[in-house]
Amino acid sequence: MDNAALLETLKDFLRIPSISTLPEHQPDIRRCAEFTAGLLRGAGLENVGLIEGQGNPLVYGDWLQVPGKPTLLFYGHYDVQPPDPLAEWLSPPFEPEVRGDNIYARGAADDKGLTLILIEAVAQLMARDGRLPVNVRFLIEGEEESGGEHIEHFVATHPEALSADAAVICDTEMFAPELPTICTGLRGILYGELVVRTARQDLHSGVYGGAVPNALMAVAEIITALKDRDGRIRIPGFSDRVRRPTAEELAAWQTLPFDEEKYRAEEAGVSELTGEPETPLFERIWARPTLEVHGIRGGFTGEGAKTVIPALAVAKLSARLVPDQQPEEAVDQIRAAIQAACPRGASAEFRLIHGAPASVVDTSSPYIRAAAEAMTEVFGNPTVYVRSGGSIPIVGVFQKHLRTPSVMMGFGLPDDNLHAPNEKLFLPNFYRGIDAVRRYLERLGAPTS
Amino acid sequence: MDNAALLETLKDFLRIPSISTLPEHQPDIRRCAEFTAGLLRGAGLENVGLIEGQGNPLVYGDWLQVPGKPTLLFYGHYDVQPPDPLAEWLSPPFEPEVRGDNIYARGAADDKGLTLILIEAVAQLMARDGRLPVNVRFLIEGEEESGGEHIEHFVATHPEALSADAAVICDTEMFAPELPTICTGLRGILYGELVVRTARQDLHSGVYGGAVPNALMAVAEIITALKDRDGRIRIPGFSDRVRRPTAEELAAWQTLPFDEEKYRAEEAGVSELTGEPETPLFERIWARPTLEVHGIRGGFTGEGAKTVIPALAVAKLSARLVPDQQPEEAVDQIRAAIQAACPRGASAEFRLIHGAPASVVDTSSPYIRAAAEAMTEVFGNPTVYVRSGGSIPIVGVFQKHLRTPSVMMGFGLPDDNLHAPNEKLFLPNFYRGIDAVRRYLERLGAPTS
Repeated sequence: MDNAALLETLKDFLRIPSISTLPEHQPDIRRCAEFTAGLLRGAGLENVGLIEGQGNPLVYGDWLQVPGKPTLLFYGHYDVQPPDPLAEWLSPPFEPEVRGDNIYARGAADDKGLTLILIEAVAQLMARDGRLPVNVRFLIEGEEESGGEHIEHFVATHPEALSADAAVICDTEMFAPELPTICTGLRGILYGELVVRTARQDLHSGVYGGAVPNALMAVAEIITALKDRDGRIRIPGFSDRVRRPTAEELAAWQTLPFDEEKYRAEEAGVSELTGEPETPLFERIWARPTLEVHGIRGGFTGEGAKTVIPALAVAKLSARLVPDQQPEEAVDQIRAAIQAACPRGASAEFRLIHGAPASVVDTSSPYIRAAAEAMTEVFGNPTVYVRSGGSIPIVGVFQKHLRTPSVMMGFGLPDDNLHAPNEKLFLPNFYRGIDAVRRYLERLGAPTS
Repeated sequence: MDNAALLETLKDFLRIPSISTLPEHQPDIRRCAEFTAGLLRGAGLENVGLIEGQGNPLVYGDWLQVPGKPTLLFYGHYDVQPPDPLAEWLSPPFEPEVRGDNIYARGAADDKGLTLILIEAVAQLMARDGRLPVNVRFLIEGEEESGGEHIEHFVATHPEALSADAAVICDTEMFAPELPTICTGLRGILYGELVVRTARQDLHSGVYGGAVPNALMAVAEIITALKDRDGRIRIPGFSDRVRRPTAEELAAWQTLPFDEEKYRAEEAGVSELTGEPETPLFERIWARPTLEVHGIRGGFTGEGAKTVIPALAVAKLSARLVPDQQPEEAVDQIRAAIQAACPRGASAEFRLIHGAPASVVDTSSPYIRAAAEAMTEVFGNPTVYVRSGGSIPIVGVFQKHLRTPSVMMGFGLPDDNLHAPNEKLFLPNFYRGIDAVRRYLERLGAPTS
């Protein structure tokens, strides 16, 4: 496909509001799954189809015509995050717009643009050679943003149908614009809701104020007990299993090109970087657990003044996990800490929505090395190894059920506004990513490899 | 009007969703003002009309044909609170339904039902005698629930047009179902928004978690700094001016018929009564300041999981004030305490929406005594004097600009669910309230008075 046609295809992909966390977008999810299957068919893959199950369809396709050569399992996701707050988008989130070198839309970088890189690399090789240098499978899911369990269930129950030497996951970012990057570690996650109830129903703050508990106040008391003002998590036992990165890894991170002031002001857009004061920044975001509150529901938040004491409050909370924290144990610790912090007159429970452990990969694998070499070749700079503070649960799933290591080639940029308004993809990386993946397949399929 | 027709009139009044805090209900506000004017005309009042100004119209009417007799200024409000959470109503909030002895609708007790008591008492005397025993003015506002300033501005600029010996305010409740009650004190209020900003925009909690501040967490840190887990307000200076009730008043409160366990379980519907541990219940709700959070906006609160670190959070806060706290000084104290409690990386401001001081009235006034006697006569029990924890700013306005004391005759009940789902009015009190107000006017107009 020429670049103009390819860009139109990307735009068509981005126009589908395939928001997996909002039930009203279910028709868009299905439409997007069909669209993705069409991309795989167009690339020349075989056995393309939707895999139905509990949850959103998986999209599968393969080409397995070179026995004796390695098999790669390509992973991506066609679902996206909700776009709110809508008012902060400069162009509508599902009307992709190219401004300068970037394309702006929800899903541009996370993960439709990067998924298309993988598909287009294969398509270009097939179009040129009529064949591929290695065997490939694609497994593209539609629940990455909602923590759905369809893909894990399918992988766990069909390991033979997905057998591969390595998985290629293209859902991470480059450390800096011209710096090819492979991600060697991811944080895990626990996401859930803290539900606090204090009364049968909301009460008038004039009549009852001074005599009854307030569910929102109880939420505030609980979350401030779980994490102090310095960003230290105060959940007993929570950090006991945290394994520090190796001295070698920490030293390598120190040499990364990095302007902390620019990161603070331009990327994060904050007046001050915060978090555990004694811990270096990369360790804080890549190798330390977090606890964040994402939203708090309850009482009255409309315009004007309503004087209710809320009876019910729900806080959306997540914790990022690092090696070697165990999700089940961490949930138990959070639950125990919530009970200990729950003020009198309130009842609290933590409802887990989803969880996944952290993961780290071995940089000595030939599949990692070939990827690093291909990226170095295309970008003209040595590939660096970093971790990501985010969570890609599929890495743990492939490791656990397939015993397949993951190669995380990053083509997104740090300022891509993932999960935020004005998400974008830097288009030069889109095209170089396709080149890099194509060369990676060629390297892996070459007689010497 | 016979009782059946009167009940239909009440239902018509309640069907108008005159929610003053929501701009989209402005047409209903106007419709309700016109409806209220119609009620005054129907009662036989003169000079009935809407008083336009900045905000929702006031409804005025008078009858001043007995020079030498006292003049009463009747106050009520035709606006109501928002009905949410809608799902908890057993019948729709603006489709009044009689179940047993109660009528259920938003505004049934606060304040349409009680406003209609005042109008109907006058209407009955006019219908029977063709005249009234005293002079009356009605001033009914449409911004009580939204803290609008129209009425205060009008009262302040037109004191001669409202001159009266006493104001009669029918927006309080009976202490117990058969216990006629006059309210002798009200808490004041400050209502505003705590606005916290931590970043230019919401950030991905995987990418930035551990490095940046969280606006919702900052709100939680600030509000828990302003009020401790025992319900003690920790705002420096805030309680310095608090005047304890007299020993006599405190002793009288001790003799009120009251079942604290029933109050806890049936009225409040809480597992435990809370608040300052060393302070008796009535003092806590009638004579101590409060600080409550009513709602918190920011981040993501939809279904499912979205992993944003919110950049902006807004908490709706109010403080109830007691004698002799000064609203302006109290706002300054709150603002200073917020700045002191604001964590690093966050900026916080408190935007005041409205404020009003507390008020207490003199129980030796003949206008209070006649009201107590009329209520004792109708209900067959001695009238008690209590305070209310709520805020009726107009009492302070009448005192300040007209030098008119307020007589607060209560006909609502403690379980009327004011500002909450399933608001109701106990219909026997509606009819006895009309009788009591009628006899009050007769007593005040009698030759011996």
